[in-house]
Amino acid sequence: MPELIEEVIVPACEARTIEVNKGQILEVVDLDGQQVGDLAAWMASDPEEYLSPGHTVSSLAKLVPEVGDSILSNHRTPLLKILRDDVGRHDLIVPCCDPERYSIDYGEPDHDSCLASLQDALAADGRDLPLRGEMCWNVFMNNVVLDGRIVTDAPPHPAGSTIAMEAQEDLIVALSACPQDISAVNNYEPTPMALRVSG
Amino acid sequence: MPELIEEVIVPACEARTIEVNKGQILEVVDLDGQQVGDLAAWMASDPEEYLSPGHTVSSLAKLVPEVGDSILSNHRTPLLKILRDDVGRHDLIVPCCDPERYSIDYGEPDHDSCLASLQDALAADGRDLPLRGEMCWNVFMNNVVLDGRIVTDAPPHPAGSTIAMEAQEDLIVALSACPQDISAVNNYEPTPMALRVSG
Repeated sequence: MPELIEEVIVPACEARTIEVNKGQILEVVDLDGQQVGDLAAWMASDPEEYLSPGHTVSSLAKLVPEVGDSILSNHRTPLLKILRDDVGRHDLIVPCCDPERYSIDYGEPDHDSCLASLQDALAADGRDLPLRGEMCWNVFMNNVVLDGRIVTDAPPHPAGSTIAMEAQEDLIVALSACPQDISAVNNYEPTPMALRVSG
Repeated sequence: MPELIEEVIVPACEARTIEVNKGQILEVVDLDGQQVGDLAAWMASDPEEYLSPGHTVSSLAKLVPEVGDSILSNHRTPLLKILRDDVGRHDLIVPCCDPERYSIDYGEPDHDSCLASLQDALAADGRDLPLRGEMCWNVFMNNVVLDGRIVTDAPPHPAGSTIAMEAQEDLIVALSACPQDISAVNNYEPTPMALRVSG
């Protein structure tokens, strides 16, 4: 049984970072249930190589990775191998929410966003890393493609739901507990999450 | 009837650039049929704002944009409004092909790729622009999502098939005539395309 090395609580509508070394286990935990986390990751040795949802979807040829699959980098390097997944629903095709998502699509110019939260978390830790919305994997997001339309349903998963992944490289990881409260993404009530590293 | 201002032929397995000003019409033409083009675009005034397939899919909430829809930037600015589309099939969720796609997924380390072609085209024109696979829209690509799997079928569209778009900003555009000949993307035979600007 791997031993807990570090736990970082990610408050609702905020983001935090954690480091995970090759061979260690990274867990993303939804503490209260029905919450989505936006996860970005960078190779510790070269942050220009980063987790890429698009390259993952391309090489797996499926929209949602499953237990046994690896999440890939922009150079198609396996970064995180899924060992256990209590939820099994994720979105890898839409970028994380950003100020313009709220100002243009919802008429809310001052709303919190995953992109701003992640920028704040990196700045707070003094980490100068490239960050763009299309680098974020929407963990536990219950998007379904129906006849080519993307439908966002409230996630049904309960408190404590966890995805556990083996780090296949030394990584810097950032997670935003998504602040979306206007659509069903987080069932209209953003709540905290946790990042755990064990090994 | 708008007058042709410039036509650039994009040879098979190569890429070229063109400039299009706000209000002008950009056409992507498949000269011989069954060919896919990978298109990237940057705001002429600020190339850190670029065409983003992911943000487009997110704000449209559909996988394939239609006539009347705009392709958006990473700041969700409308860049190109679709006026006419002879094909109606496109892929906005997988990045363009890159050296690792061929070396890792197909065991072909020396294969041409859209990413390398686009890099070459920008270098040949002396254009220092950010370029990443996830910035490319796969024009005319016949990917279908079936039960969460991405299935790539040969494109059925004939020679001369065109998509015409109104530029909503001053843009620099690059198009790669995709060199994929191992899968059905271009029906196993890459052919040339054309970029046309009229106004």
